[in-house]
Amino acid sequence: MTISELAELSGIPAATIKYYVRDGLLPAGERVSAKKTEYSDAHLHRLRLVRAMLEVGKLSVSSVLEVLSALDDPARDIVYTFEVAQRSLARGAVAGAEPSPESLARIDAVAERVGWVDCGGNIGRGMAARAIDAAEAAGVHFDDDFLNAYGDAADRVAEADLAALRDLRDRTRVAEVMVVGTVLGDPLAAGFRRMAQQHRSTASPR
Amino acid sequence: MTISELAELSGIPAATIKYYVRDGLLPAGERVSAKKTEYSDAHLHRLRLVRAMLEVGKLSVSSVLEVLSALDDPARDIVYTFEVAQRSLARGAVAGAEPSPESLARIDAVAERVGWVDCGGNIGRGMAARAIDAAEAAGVHFDDDFLNAYGDAADRVAEADLAALRDLRDRTRVAEVMVVGTVLGDPLAAGFRRMAQQHRSTASPR
Repeated sequence: MTISELAELSGIPAATIKYYVRDGLLPAGERVSAKKTEYSDAHLHRLRLVRAMLEVGKLSVSSVLEVLSALDDPARDIVYTFEVAQRSLARGAVAGAEPSPESLARIDAVAERVGWVDCGGNIGRGMAARAIDAAEAAGVHFDDDFLNAYGDAADRVAEADLAALRDLRDRTRVAEVMVVGTVLGDPLAAGFRRMAQQHRSTASPR
Repeated sequence: MTISELAELSGIPAATIKYYVRDGLLPAGERVSAKKTEYSDAHLHRLRLVRAMLEVGKLSVSSVLEVLSALDDPARDIVYTFEVAQRSLARGAVAGAEPSPESLARIDAVAERVGWVDCGGNIGRGMAARAIDAAEAAGVHFDDDFLNAYGDAADRVAEADLAALRDLRDRTRVAEVMVVGTVLGDPLAAGFRRMAQQHRSTASPR
């Protein structure tokens, strides 16, 4: 397809597509003649993924490049790509203080109870521990039942996250669904949580 | 207690406390003599809450004032305060396009299946629907199983959110725990989700 057709199918202006190519976010099209450059479905896919990361995930261009490079490296497996995506997406959120050893220990206790193994180096461990610290600093204690409920819910959600990848054959497609799901699963969960809070606070008024 | 004692107990500098009082975020202390102003435990509590909203929740001063005014209005019930807190916290996240009717209908179908009633006006409905729209725009379809899993998980989390309020008698304390929990429950859930993703992607490598 031409760049105009690519722009029309993706909803992204041709000028923006050219910027993406220049920044290395999108491979250049194939030059078939002096006046014509040909783009493929792979370009369309990549374009959608890049836009999701930039506009929805609010990733910087360098973070997107990092995720794409993990994604395009055939030596890297899905676990590594997940880690890169998670780290990039978390960068804004995790700036700040180191989590306390007490809160990390409480997160590890939840992980052990739910049965998660090998999560010690995961970016989420510090995110969750810092949330506990920040709550304590605000005078609110998240008790064990509370943390365990969040752990159970996260396990249910991650099961769905991975199930969405199960039947995908193509490696690029797997990474695409993974990155978009990681970016958009958070607001989806946050939105549903607010609806459920409202239902439960209405159903049992105080 | 004196302002110095309040600063020490809260970990917030006296100068910052004075700014909070000036901006209406904290009631003034009681003037007991020309040289001495007395602060109470209520000040300490409010101070921690304000800091949580400003620093952790990244709310604007005007949003914090809005939440505090709902919180301090004895005519307002917990449902209303929840709504104000949710709206204020969501303000940054929900800027952007209107959700599509198709995605809103899908969110409503999940709500109906999980048994949430009266959530039509909730801020979370649009957040969740926009996440579906953004995924579609990025070429990823969140299927019904996926949405239902997120709905179930959110219900579990909201149950814990409300359980944390159950044994609290004091109205201000209820609001405090609610606001802090709403702000910090999202990163807690996001952190746990990343750990669970890593566990599940490691446990069943592709």
